[in-house]
Amino acid sequence: MPSGPLMIIGGAEDKVRKPTILKHFVALSGGPDARIAVIPTASSLGREVVDVYDALFSKFGAARVDAVRPESREQAHDPALVKALDEATGIFMTGGNQLKLSSIICGTPVGDAILRAHDRGAVVAGTSAGASIQSSHMVAFGVGGATPKQRMTQVAAGLGLVDSTVIDQHFDQRNRYGRLLMIVSQSPQLLGIGVDEDTCGLVEDVDGDMVMRVLGKGAVTIFDGARMTSNAYEAKRSSPLLASGVIFHVLPEGAVFNLSTRTLVPQEPVVAGEDAEELAEATRDLRQLVRDIAAADAAPAAIRRRLALRRTRSTPPTTPDQGDPS
Amino acid sequence: MPSGPLMIIGGAEDKVRKPTILKHFVALSGGPDARIAVIPTASSLGREVVDVYDALFSKFGAARVDAVRPESREQAHDPALVKALDEATGIFMTGGNQLKLSSIICGTPVGDAILRAHDRGAVVAGTSAGASIQSSHMVAFGVGGATPKQRMTQVAAGLGLVDSTVIDQHFDQRNRYGRLLMIVSQSPQLLGIGVDEDTCGLVEDVDGDMVMRVLGKGAVTIFDGARMTSNAYEAKRSSPLLASGVIFHVLPEGAVFNLSTRTLVPQEPVVAGEDAEELAEATRDLRQLVRDIAAADAAPAAIRRRLALRRTRSTPPTTPDQGDPS
Repeated sequence: MPSGPLMIIGGAEDKVRKPTILKHFVALSGGPDARIAVIPTASSLGREVVDVYDALFSKFGAARVDAVRPESREQAHDPALVKALDEATGIFMTGGNQLKLSSIICGTPVGDAILRAHDRGAVVAGTSAGASIQSSHMVAFGVGGATPKQRMTQVAAGLGLVDSTVIDQHFDQRNRYGRLLMIVSQSPQLLGIGVDEDTCGLVEDVDGDMVMRVLGKGAVTIFDGARMTSNAYEAKRSSPLLASGVIFHVLPEGAVFNLSTRTLVPQEPVVAGEDAEELAEATRDLRQLVRDIAAADAAPAAIRRRLALRRTRSTPPTTPDQGDPS
Repeated sequence: MPSGPLMIIGGAEDKVRKPTILKHFVALSGGPDARIAVIPTASSLGREVVDVYDALFSKFGAARVDAVRPESREQAHDPALVKALDEATGIFMTGGNQLKLSSIICGTPVGDAILRAHDRGAVVAGTSAGASIQSSHMVAFGVGGATPKQRMTQVAAGLGLVDSTVIDQHFDQRNRYGRLLMIVSQSPQLLGIGVDEDTCGLVEDVDGDMVMRVLGKGAVTIFDGARMTSNAYEAKRSSPLLASGVIFHVLPEGAVFNLSTRTLVPQEPVVAGEDAEELAEATRDLRQLVRDIAAADAAPAAIRRRLALRRTRSTPPTTPDQGDPS
């Protein structure tokens, strides 16, 4: 069985007006059969955060919502918490301080239960801190700014649900190009993933590849340093870094990117509403015209007659041949 | 004769503590022979801005500083202003509103005199607005933000001193990744150049190629969209854009980039002070060791003797062979 979907959410996901991402999480987790475990450990608010997500996930139809809230590594050994995770169809990690979250749960039975849940096909989602911790290498903390500078951020170990990556969040809103690029400059084998607020990278196992589809209001930015040149190993103090030849991708909603091959997966453009009807009509007309020209009766006069006939369709449809297969 | 150097300064260049960039401008313009024309048209301050640069350039040794300050297209036909530009060895355009600057001078005798000065080898420098106007396609105005969004910025025509480019400034400080990337997504043939504050891209004609060396505190960021995939031609309203496969380069002080071939020019790493001495000493020792091993007397005992001799150099130098060529 393939591993479960991962939802990497850039923080500040819409909870009220257009809660697309959170609804999607409940649906993926099984909708009316969803058993969701909320891990609020990153947050200093704790109980209140659980209450918010409990209310939301219940409203979106989840059968059950449990809080899994270890506040120390010792508590992260609690069998009751592990049981809740083992029974969950969806796990949701809240925002807050990702270094608190990772240093409390990584390498404990609670951390292991999350990895196990992913392996058995459950959904693992996280927002902000809960997004960062999913990567193998985690942004611990650091300052904003577009230009990468030596020492502007620190790396710690994450859960490793998404291998060979480093994930950052609030990416546009907190101007985190620089710090993500600093990490990629120092570790070019890592794929840098920056997720905007109210935006989600939905990662699924497709024939053994990790394939990410973007949903939400902003974009997911990818830094691929595989072929880059950098001076990060010799840059002094907090000087700006040389980072030349980085390939990057800004991916809005609907874009699909293969994280394993590091390539964009081409998508058919989505044309909606009236535009779609008009386009379909024009396509049918062109196809018919091709057939007409190819047909024996394609004398210029015959084509003119057909075109004249077809033009009447621009006025309210009256000709019966509109229903013809074409 | 090759065209003159261009100095593309990202705004807020240091004027007091470490005015490296402005000093460099005066030196390039001829030092004690420099005749500098300051164009403060972009600024709403005008006279005061000229006074500041007059004081600075005079302090750095320029022979003469003239103000060239057209405030309308009509004034930009004034022969006295054109004469000052024609006699200048260096032209400096201040910051302010680049759309004011471009719409007053481009396509007028003043604008033409700047192009002429560049062609005859004079230095043309500009900071902020004065940087943007140097590109063929100019960021007119627009909002900040890291994620490129449709309609977040407007393009106008610049002076075109740097062809096939679009130059943005205050790049890190005002978070302008998004707007520069929007322009490159819509016009992938343009090279996007984002210059940080107190940072300068010094562009020179090297065998017909435009080659840029970076100086100053921040970095110059380059977006190369030649191989990119984008949905910019069909994105609606202000939605985030798909911009996949952009190659980018963050270039700190000392980095050299060929704008014509769009490639980094490799540089020898600069090793300074004590490090340099130590490195040179170690290099000499290794070279000598290679010669010893290759030489007839390279019996193990002889090598040990030589190494012992050489080790005495670590203590204050006493051996005369230190002066040997090696």
